[in-house]
Amino acid sequence: MRPVVLLTGATGFLGTQCLARLIEAAPGTLHAVAGSRPGSAQPGVIWHQADLRRSEECYALIGKVRPTHLLHCAWVATPGIYSQTPENIAWVTGSAALADAFGRSGGERFVSLGSSAEYAPGDGPCHEDHTPILPATPYGKSKVGFWHVLQAAAQAHGFSAAWGRVFLPYGTGDNPKRLLPSLIGALDAQQEFPASAGEQLRDFIFSTDIADMLTRLMWVDDIGAFNIGTGRGVTVRRAMELTADLLGARHLLRIGARQMVAGEPMTLVADMTKTGRALGVLAPIQIEEGITRAIREFRSR
Amino acid sequence: MRPVVLLTGATGFLGTQCLARLIEAAPGTLHAVAGSRPGSAQPGVIWHQADLRRSEECYALIGKVRPTHLLHCAWVATPGIYSQTPENIAWVTGSAALADAFGRSGGERFVSLGSSAEYAPGDGPCHEDHTPILPATPYGKSKVGFWHVLQAAAQAHGFSAAWGRVFLPYGTGDNPKRLLPSLIGALDAQQEFPASAGEQLRDFIFSTDIADMLTRLMWVDDIGAFNIGTGRGVTVRRAMELTADLLGARHLLRIGARQMVAGEPMTLVADMTKTGRALGVLAPIQIEEGITRAIREFRSR
Repeated sequence: MRPVVLLTGATGFLGTQCLARLIEAAPGTLHAVAGSRPGSAQPGVIWHQADLRRSEECYALIGKVRPTHLLHCAWVATPGIYSQTPENIAWVTGSAALADAFGRSGGERFVSLGSSAEYAPGDGPCHEDHTPILPATPYGKSKVGFWHVLQAAAQAHGFSAAWGRVFLPYGTGDNPKRLLPSLIGALDAQQEFPASAGEQLRDFIFSTDIADMLTRLMWVDDIGAFNIGTGRGVTVRRAMELTADLLGARHLLRIGARQMVAGEPMTLVADMTKTGRALGVLAPIQIEEGITRAIREFRSR
Repeated sequence: MRPVVLLTGATGFLGTQCLARLIEAAPGTLHAVAGSRPGSAQPGVIWHQADLRRSEECYALIGKVRPTHLLHCAWVATPGIYSQTPENIAWVTGSAALADAFGRSGGERFVSLGSSAEYAPGDGPCHEDHTPILPATPYGKSKVGFWHVLQAAAQAHGFSAAWGRVFLPYGTGDNPKRLLPSLIGALDAQQEFPASAGEQLRDFIFSTDIADMLTRLMWVDDIGAFNIGTGRGVTVRRAMELTADLLGARHLLRIGARQMVAGEPMTLVADMTKTGRALGVLAPIQIEEGITRAIREFRSR
């Protein structure tokens, strides 16, 4: 039987990139769902519209599509809002219903997006099965909660589930309100950009590399959590300075002009051993190349 | 403002005992909700009927009651079924909606039932914050999932939440299909009772002691997970032998006639330090007294 693939959040930052990968790979019938506006018509994609925070819409969608494979990218992601909003709870309600409906209709493989926000703060790289889980925000807690529920559904219904813990995404399709697009926009307009000291070490991963890993995760049998990162730590300051240098506008970047957000973990870098072993690939795009691409794409919008 | 208390699962095994305690304590207005049949009329109790696996019924109920304090006992608990059934997922969907609705309507204190099934198997007593969490069943995974979601809702909405991890409940109101009532029923009817070796060490806690702790947990400020046990380990074999001896029917108990269920943890005993400190009480009923009561009540049904 040919796979029937369903992608949720298909018009979002990462969902859009996953959709492009799935169209390329053309593994079977491809369904895509978005919350508000349907995506643009693309050959080979069957579009649906549903509010997946609502259980009944999840059951109705799954009943109609009957997917064998599901990649669940949909979740609240509004910059400045997503980490604290109670909307995260509604996403668990809906996602739990989605997982249950998927199992009931005979689904086989469910891949969902987790986050590096699930890990307890620490100094070393985050390992999927050894680093303690201690989310600090409603977003992180809700993601951890749903991952447990997804495993419950997988066990009760007999499907296989994988969880991609995404580190710091940037690049193609990024929301203009997030850090690097904001910086590029300001410097291109010759405006000063007040920034924090940016001493946090982060694992910046280019969005198309994320999509590559997440879609590969759909076709392997491995179950459990998998880091989606590069394994390379870069300070936020270094990423900002690289961007400013590439734009020839280092003089507009005001490092230290803002307070760092209190309670932010200093280090969030992925241990990529487990994912590398499962997928046979790592994220190839280095930060210099990624920021160069991000600038080019930002300017051509 | 006088508290408005809502008890869910109010006609269930533990819910019934909690309701009795809440009626005694009479802390304010008392609402009780059950799934199928409404409870019997009792002075001071306002009964509701709702299927709390359904989000929309949760929002409707909370909108009507507007509780300041909620004790959430409702969950699938059918003996032989509850640990593996996908119905656990529906209970997360509904419970997440309940927590969200509670926060949106200005609720203050949410106490929910967890389980010793959340803990990883080990040799020592289970400690709330040090013993690893590694649930083996869809029931345990769903409970762990909901506890994370409840913490997300508490943080996002600003209410306080506590989680009572119940160990092995028995006694008043127990389901006739569970171990000790089945044993009492068989021996009273002079039937042989084939049992496993029963070498598992368990923390048997009498249902009224559970209700006492859970209802006390509603009026303290402490947040987090709290074991609801006795801190005393008793083998399943010893509990069965005690029962048989009290019935003068040890000859009918066939220890070792059945296989032990594969994959059961050998030891599940609560460390009661944290709960004792928060509540100032421990479970007073010893197993001998508890089984004596259980026999008396079983016979008077």
